[in-house]
Amino acid sequence: MQNIYIKDLSQHIGEEITLTGWLYNKRSSGKIKFIILRDGTGLLQCVYFKGNVTPEVFELADRLGQESSIEVKGKVKAEPRAVGGYELDATDLHVISEAHDYPITPKDHGVEFLMDNRHLWLRSSRQVAIMRIRHRIVKAIRDFFDNRGFTLMDPPILTPAACEGTSTLFETEYFDLGKAYLTQSGQLYAEAGAMALGKVYTFGPTFRAEKSKTRRHLTEFWMVEPEVAFNDLNDNMDLAEEFLEYIVQTVLKDKQEELKVLERDTTKLENVKKPLPRISYDEAVEILKKNGIDFQWGNDFGGTDETVISNQFDRPVMVHRYPAEVKAFYMKRDPQNEKLALAVDVLAPEGYGEIIGGSQREDSLELLQARIKEHNLPQSAFEWYLDLRRFGSVPHSGFGLGLERTVSWICGLDHLREAIPFARMIYRNTP
Amino acid sequence: MQNIYIKDLSQHIGEEITLTGWLYNKRSSGKIKFIILRDGTGLLQCVYFKGNVTPEVFELADRLGQESSIEVKGKVKAEPRAVGGYELDATDLHVISEAHDYPITPKDHGVEFLMDNRHLWLRSSRQVAIMRIRHRIVKAIRDFFDNRGFTLMDPPILTPAACEGTSTLFETEYFDLGKAYLTQSGQLYAEAGAMALGKVYTFGPTFRAEKSKTRRHLTEFWMVEPEVAFNDLNDNMDLAEEFLEYIVQTVLKDKQEELKVLERDTTKLENVKKPLPRISYDEAVEILKKNGIDFQWGNDFGGTDETVISNQFDRPVMVHRYPAEVKAFYMKRDPQNEKLALAVDVLAPEGYGEIIGGSQREDSLELLQARIKEHNLPQSAFEWYLDLRRFGSVPHSGFGLGLERTVSWICGLDHLREAIPFARMIYRNTP
Repeated sequence: MQNIYIKDLSQHIGEEITLTGWLYNKRSSGKIKFIILRDGTGLLQCVYFKGNVTPEVFELADRLGQESSIEVKGKVKAEPRAVGGYELDATDLHVISEAHDYPITPKDHGVEFLMDNRHLWLRSSRQVAIMRIRHRIVKAIRDFFDNRGFTLMDPPILTPAACEGTSTLFETEYFDLGKAYLTQSGQLYAEAGAMALGKVYTFGPTFRAEKSKTRRHLTEFWMVEPEVAFNDLNDNMDLAEEFLEYIVQTVLKDKQEELKVLERDTTKLENVKKPLPRISYDEAVEILKKNGIDFQWGNDFGGTDETVISNQFDRPVMVHRYPAEVKAFYMKRDPQNEKLALAVDVLAPEGYGEIIGGSQREDSLELLQARIKEHNLPQSAFEWYLDLRRFGSVPHSGFGLGLERTVSWICGLDHLREAIPFARMIYRNTP
Repeated sequence: MQNIYIKDLSQHIGEEITLTGWLYNKRSSGKIKFIILRDGTGLLQCVYFKGNVTPEVFELADRLGQESSIEVKGKVKAEPRAVGGYELDATDLHVISEAHDYPITPKDHGVEFLMDNRHLWLRSSRQVAIMRIRHRIVKAIRDFFDNRGFTLMDPPILTPAACEGTSTLFETEYFDLGKAYLTQSGQLYAEAGAMALGKVYTFGPTFRAEKSKTRRHLTEFWMVEPEVAFNDLNDNMDLAEEFLEYIVQTVLKDKQEELKVLERDTTKLENVKKPLPRISYDEAVEILKKNGIDFQWGNDFGGTDETVISNQFDRPVMVHRYPAEVKAFYMKRDPQNEKLALAVDVLAPEGYGEIIGGSQREDSLELLQARIKEHNLPQSAFEWYLDLRRFGSVPHSGFGLGLERTVSWICGLDHLREAIPFARMIYRNTP
């Protein structure tokens, strides 16, 4: 068992220790060989002086290829100039498994080559930093809801019907029961949960068989969806802004080192504090027009529209009350204007677009039945969902936050594919 | 927005408050009507004295059906004899949505009827208790690994090849790339993660299209899978026993109230502390023979075998070193005996069977290639996995724990279908 990790070296200064890991990089300077060891928790420069080790060890240090697994021995010393702040005055070196011709070298590689070798690419410092930040975001999301009395409700992945439209479904044969579909959202199930437990959240993988090749789409992505009984649209926005502040400020507090590896300019993240600006769809359309964009009221915003709108603000902006026609059937209409849905989208700054979509839900049985008919959805598949309105309907609201879009924004990534360990896209389902 | 919840009533004794929720039950006693309110956080008896409220309110209290959504007003007082320990001396009552003929009444219903109405069944006290314990177990699992330096690595759900055998796969068309399969285990991806980050865990839904109708099988279930570089089989068992102790003792500490609702005898759970007994497969076979079971060395254990073995112990038992033939291709062989795999299964007491399966992994490229051939698996699909042995292979181990089996055991359930919000089985994919 690994007893000492690089991240804990501060507790071992002056000690003679043994570490295991992989050769991340090496260089030579006459009578000195430098080996950079990585162990998954950090990097450590191990210094082999010709006079301090046997000739065999010195020769070995020269020969080993990148990503060879090794055991190193030596004395730990503080060395502010070295990576991580420590250095090993090495006395010994053993090979566990010698590697040669490791495909990913410090030189530049094309993205497709790196994605083909994703299982190895994950070992690079940049990818390690992203995975650590992703983990911290997941934990912040769960802590936020756990500490506020929400109950986790894992929704099913295999579902009998579509929830967000039928054109982008993955389907599979389900024994003798016909077809089942991979879930597009846990929301309908979260609503059942909210009627049982008051405040719930779902958090799991969701699927869209979208034939989209943009940098903002994955076919498989994780989504967290809180749902709260008795919350209206304003309560929903209050929850969303508190939530976003908590996630971003937690990462800023705990993950400075990783953000530095990614060379992320964090000044724009520091602004993510409530209150977030709230504008109506109508006001957003005005912004587009003032910026010379020919936008037709009633349409949904495209990526460029979102960027123009969000560029007006120094933090995420909440846009509420969209035309009902561009939104899902289950959203409640605005009592002030039947053409509007009580929806809210949150647009991230810096061109990262929509990261949250939510709404108050229709709580009238009759109106919901009418919407299902208007949308040509099969009412039989939704009878269970209609039961939530037949038996004790209450006002309720919720939203969904896309994990990979959030990771991408906070890390400052160019493409969602780096925000998840093994991305799935229209042209990729490997490795 | 709901401002006061039943679980927080101790902070409001003597205050006049308003609460919202659902009518859980009611009874009448001449000039008094009792309404049991539920709000997802608890139950509260609201007492309507004829003289204290208007005749309309008194009549309304009489008329409302189960699961009507309501708003109640009144003064909170401590009442040790009432459910939850508090009572509302009620002064007013408003209907939000009146319900009649709620399908699930306090009388007995058949299981299939309850599963058909799972979206409503979740509102009952027993199901609420199970969901809260499930949530606490999920949080304990994540806290355990988060606090020990593990990094979360979400594995893909859509995978290009089978990992645990090809007979139980759900498949879907994946654009122009042919078929993709729903993951049976995140392990292979966790191994890639362990080589990058040292200690990782995956935790997500996994799928088995098993035509099994037992009470211990779901087609969709959640699994947590830690994987640790440089851990051998013994380290793996150390981790597993510490993990199980942490989960069970955490639930015992935090969820006494819910365990009481379930009438769980917790004395047997209190024993779940390390060290757990460790016996070899050979010793387990001896136990079966001593108990008069005609068992052939080389077979895998069936449900009855597991129960006989686990009945010998007062806590979960770890059975290690199984015949390699009944285990997966990626398990390392025992250097002492080539016929054995360095596997470990943990059997829960009280007949709950296998809850953990794990092993040390084969770290030799040549042996792993040979196993893939022996198992008739397509080597091309595993090239990326073989790369983990080509480039810096190290000893490593891990295991998987099935969430629903663990929930079922800790809650003392008869069937896995109650351990997950919306169970998926061979004959059910609704609601």
